[in-house]
Amino acid sequence: MSGRLSVVGLGPGNSYQLTPEADSTVSAADALFGYGPYLDRVPERVGQRRHASDNRQELQRAERALIAAAAGETVAIVSGGDPGVFGMAAAVCEALARGPKEWRSVQVAFVPGISAMLAVAARVGAPLGHDFCAISLSDNLKPWEVVEQRLDAAAAAGFVIALYNPISRARPWQLERAFARLGAILPAATPVVFGRAVGRPDERITIAELSAARNNSADMATCIIVGSAETRLIERPGERPIVYTPRGTARLTA
Amino acid sequence: MSGRLSVVGLGPGNSYQLTPEADSTVSAADALFGYGPYLDRVPERVGQRRHASDNRQELQRAERALIAAAAGETVAIVSGGDPGVFGMAAAVCEALARGPKEWRSVQVAFVPGISAMLAVAARVGAPLGHDFCAISLSDNLKPWEVVEQRLDAAAAAGFVIALYNPISRARPWQLERAFARLGAILPAATPVVFGRAVGRPDERITIAELSAARNNSADMATCIIVGSAETRLIERPGERPIVYTPRGTARLTA
Repeated sequence: MSGRLSVVGLGPGNSYQLTPEADSTVSAADALFGYGPYLDRVPERVGQRRHASDNRQELQRAERALIAAAAGETVAIVSGGDPGVFGMAAAVCEALARGPKEWRSVQVAFVPGISAMLAVAARVGAPLGHDFCAISLSDNLKPWEVVEQRLDAAAAAGFVIALYNPISRARPWQLERAFARLGAILPAATPVVFGRAVGRPDERITIAELSAARNNSADMATCIIVGSAETRLIERPGERPIVYTPRGTARLTA
Repeated sequence: MSGRLSVVGLGPGNSYQLTPEADSTVSAADALFGYGPYLDRVPERVGQRRHASDNRQELQRAERALIAAAAGETVAIVSGGDPGVFGMAAAVCEALARGPKEWRSVQVAFVPGISAMLAVAARVGAPLGHDFCAISLSDNLKPWEVVEQRLDAAAAAGFVIALYNPISRARPWQLERAFARLGAILPAATPVVFGRAVGRPDERITIAELSAARNNSADMATCIIVGSAETRLIERPGERPIVYTPRGTARLTA
């Protein structure tokens, strides 16, 4: 008797950017699993159980949800943004791959959401308007050298770069190192957008030039977009400038 | 007298993945502008005008919408997926940047949507589960050499690659060239996901190995995800395999 496991993206954290699919999947679940602050975004429903766990316990959370689904329950794991972009989707797949064979009979579904970089980009214009990449700055699961190599490759090839997990208490130094590395390749005036808690009451957007970009505008709830050499600003009277990357390029980089 | 222009992402093209924000912004507009097939997704409303235009006329469409908004109207431009990812957002910024100064007093808003790569990824598992990039294969607005350079850089640095605009009648040859280039860097068995019209009635998902990936599974409505060397499959009884990229890597590439 196998149940169903859905891995659901809640988007930025407001109801107007939550898809009807995510909303109804979460409502229909017998049990919800997730990092506490994400679970807190979901309205309570009588009869629905909630299993909050800590930020770093993705694999354990995935395993517990799979055990419940394999026992016949309808289960949802909630993730901020999109679960497939540095969210819970890959952790669920890893747990499934190394778990018992019977888990593979669980119906597994992934429900996309508005990822942080899309929400941040929309607030300031179109910084992702051309080729871009998304990099997690966390070195919990990959060597820092790989992060540096990817930053270099992306900047040199002309990609706009969205940085996820830019900083945490345990990793205070990576972000300035990343800015320094990118600054060795990109123009000093390259626009950098800090989008903190976008779409929530404590939203804060900051725009800086790469040469002046520092740690202090970022925390764990921040997604950062570093422009390419093509990214530019449109100044507006009495308003924040618009940041965009034109759709085309005439230039060969490198 | 300045009006308002919203650039709205309709997501993959079904109502369950359309955000409430996108839905209400489109409903509230006096006039809608867009590529015909995207406008067709929006329910008709009495008193709301519609201006359909051809696929390739992004800049002209943006200018017409800005003229209407500058005259005081509440206007929405609709885009498939997310407008900031190879959609209409950058075209609107370009039009704004080169247009008359008074356009800068128009209230401009960007409404994010579920981009094609997120929808395709969710259908098959978590192929974007680690660092990834998005590249448009169109050489309408950039030299083909830049596309090749970015494909090489992304594959060598270990990024998963989402390919937008993979093929069209006017550009039949790029996709096989791209596969050949990536095949020179990545393992022959690297999973490639073709997601056509995901979330719509004519959805078709195909999974191939990179060495066997060909043009014939793709058209203009297709978004393709090419894995990294880490991307792998989970086979399931009687079902399509799950495709995922683990969250971590121990390996240094290149």
